[in-house]
Amino acid sequence: MRATLIYGERDIRSEIVPDPSLSGSGQDAIVRVTAACVCGSDLWPYRGVTQPNMPKRIGHEFIGVVEEVAAGVTSVRAGDFVIAPFYDCCGTCANCVGGFTTSCLEVGWWGGSDHWGHDVDGAQGELVRVPHADGTLKVVEGGLPSADMIPDLLTLSDVFLTGHHAAISAGVTAGSTVAVVGDGAVGLSAVLAARRLGAERIVAMSRHASRQDVARAFGATDIVPERGDEGVAKLKDMFSGIGPDAVLECVGTKESMDQALRAARPGGQVGFVGVPNGGPELPMRTMFGTNVGVRGGIAPVRNYIDEILPEVLAGDLRPGQVFDARFALADAAAAYAAMEERRAIKSLLTT
Amino acid sequence: MRATLIYGERDIRSEIVPDPSLSGSGQDAIVRVTAACVCGSDLWPYRGVTQPNMPKRIGHEFIGVVEEVAAGVTSVRAGDFVIAPFYDCCGTCANCVGGFTTSCLEVGWWGGSDHWGHDVDGAQGELVRVPHADGTLKVVEGGLPSADMIPDLLTLSDVFLTGHHAAISAGVTAGSTVAVVGDGAVGLSAVLAARRLGAERIVAMSRHASRQDVARAFGATDIVPERGDEGVAKLKDMFSGIGPDAVLECVGTKESMDQALRAARPGGQVGFVGVPNGGPELPMRTMFGTNVGVRGGIAPVRNYIDEILPEVLAGDLRPGQVFDARFALADAAAAYAAMEERRAIKSLLTT
Repeated sequence: MRATLIYGERDIRSEIVPDPSLSGSGQDAIVRVTAACVCGSDLWPYRGVTQPNMPKRIGHEFIGVVEEVAAGVTSVRAGDFVIAPFYDCCGTCANCVGGFTTSCLEVGWWGGSDHWGHDVDGAQGELVRVPHADGTLKVVEGGLPSADMIPDLLTLSDVFLTGHHAAISAGVTAGSTVAVVGDGAVGLSAVLAARRLGAERIVAMSRHASRQDVARAFGATDIVPERGDEGVAKLKDMFSGIGPDAVLECVGTKESMDQALRAARPGGQVGFVGVPNGGPELPMRTMFGTNVGVRGGIAPVRNYIDEILPEVLAGDLRPGQVFDARFALADAAAAYAAMEERRAIKSLLTT
Repeated sequence: MRATLIYGERDIRSEIVPDPSLSGSGQDAIVRVTAACVCGSDLWPYRGVTQPNMPKRIGHEFIGVVEEVAAGVTSVRAGDFVIAPFYDCCGTCANCVGGFTTSCLEVGWWGGSDHWGHDVDGAQGELVRVPHADGTLKVVEGGLPSADMIPDLLTLSDVFLTGHHAAISAGVTAGSTVAVVGDGAVGLSAVLAARRLGAERIVAMSRHASRQDVARAFGATDIVPERGDEGVAKLKDMFSGIGPDAVLECVGTKESMDQALRAARPGGQVGFVGVPNGGPELPMRTMFGTNVGVRGGIAPVRNYIDEILPEVLAGDLRPGQVFDARFALADAAAAYAAMEERRAIKSLLTT
């Protein structure tokens, strides 16, 4: 089959690799990928900021059709159209049941290894072996509704539900005032998620016209291009001199978290989903003085899919607008370059 | 009048100082102190850990009787029995209305200065000028119900409601599983607050028999004397191998926060109220991986008094058990020494 590998900085290759097969655990499924995509977090190794052992299979978001299941799998059958979260999880341990499948006691990662130590395929390929099929895969009843819904459904693998997690972590609810730091695909998704949750006012912090347009289409009521001290001052001004209730941090740098912490009103909350790459520390003393809470992290998207999928299938929620570039799987290198050079917000890959 | 001053490390003196008078702002009241007390945070300058400009008036918790009010004061009258939070606040700005009176845009601090830059008395004295009488003071209708309720009412000035803030910040609710780090007066108060909020299981982390007894009386279901790695392992074991929903950090050292962050289950929450003195940073990357949230800070006790006072007046809530030593105001130095030497959990001062 065809798969995408990262060999080093800005070195993405599409290669023919062996097809996956059932591992013998009895819990596997093999899924033929209908669509996958490139994540902002894939750009970290692409830029050389993080350096995993390479060459390495890459990609962690996909939807597809089940080809084969092991004997022990009960909720998924060959021919089912499924959504996979960006990790695999058992669905039955204390953390899965407690709402945090990303902390599953048997968690595994696409392109890495499963709980039993076996290699797992990356999602940017034609086939993926799914170690815990029952806990991981969400079956879309009736199959793929229509081809134009592929982008919307694919966002439930990661990006929209990661934006949703930022909003949930920040406690966004009906009537909230919200600012979103970051205008990448996750930040834009967070805007849409905040609107869905009933936020009264949503500020997108963005200085790029095309992204501002998507933000407005997703429900942003205001755009603030300023950053740093000016950005904080602008937000304070807009909300009674004290700032918004919730700030959604969707970047992951020290600067963006600083912006978020300073902009929230006293007693407000920062919801963060940007993978922290710019410095590991939060200023405890500042948080003590302002009572601004910080909550978030790697999004337990599998716990959210059941609630959100019906709205997508009904056409009421169209999160797929974050995809503004489309590539064949064999052209994955071009899909990465388009995002790296900011010609695309998010690149979709079809097989 | 008699007042308490700190002159330096372990140097507390009771002296005669000028009586306060109305400042001319039109919003003042003068209150005659019935009872005050020593806070764990008073021990930081006492131990020389923090070094304010000295000599300095000290003490920030008091209840008392109004002697005189300025012309502009409308909700408080001479003769009223009142509870003062550990700060003064206007009660009408965006932060006060938003639930965070400790971030009042005109906040002032006992023993420091008011919004207009005038000196303010410390609470460990016979009289205190209250700059925003309407926003700050809570009138106890009908006056002091009985002398044995003095300790209970005094806890609404700070300690019980600071414990309550830890529980609220950690999202404790009916059925929560909770661990409390710290067995000082605030930690014990947090145990009681968690019980009041309906927590199903409450672990007090304590290695002192007398404090364990108070913790049990306040509703602790379990006692864990272990700390560090052993303490974390014990808590994980007790709660499905993953830890409790909420951890209440009531100390303020780097070690206690580390303990709290590591003990909470994935997706759990740390509520913190210990004044951070052991290091200012939180490990962002760890929080990202576990989705453990951190929220808390200086407790907006004035926002809580209205809800809690009726339960205290009815005798249903007896938070005053944290006071296990009583001193005359003139013996304030002995009251500090008793706490410093851990002979007392919390020292009460009467005038």
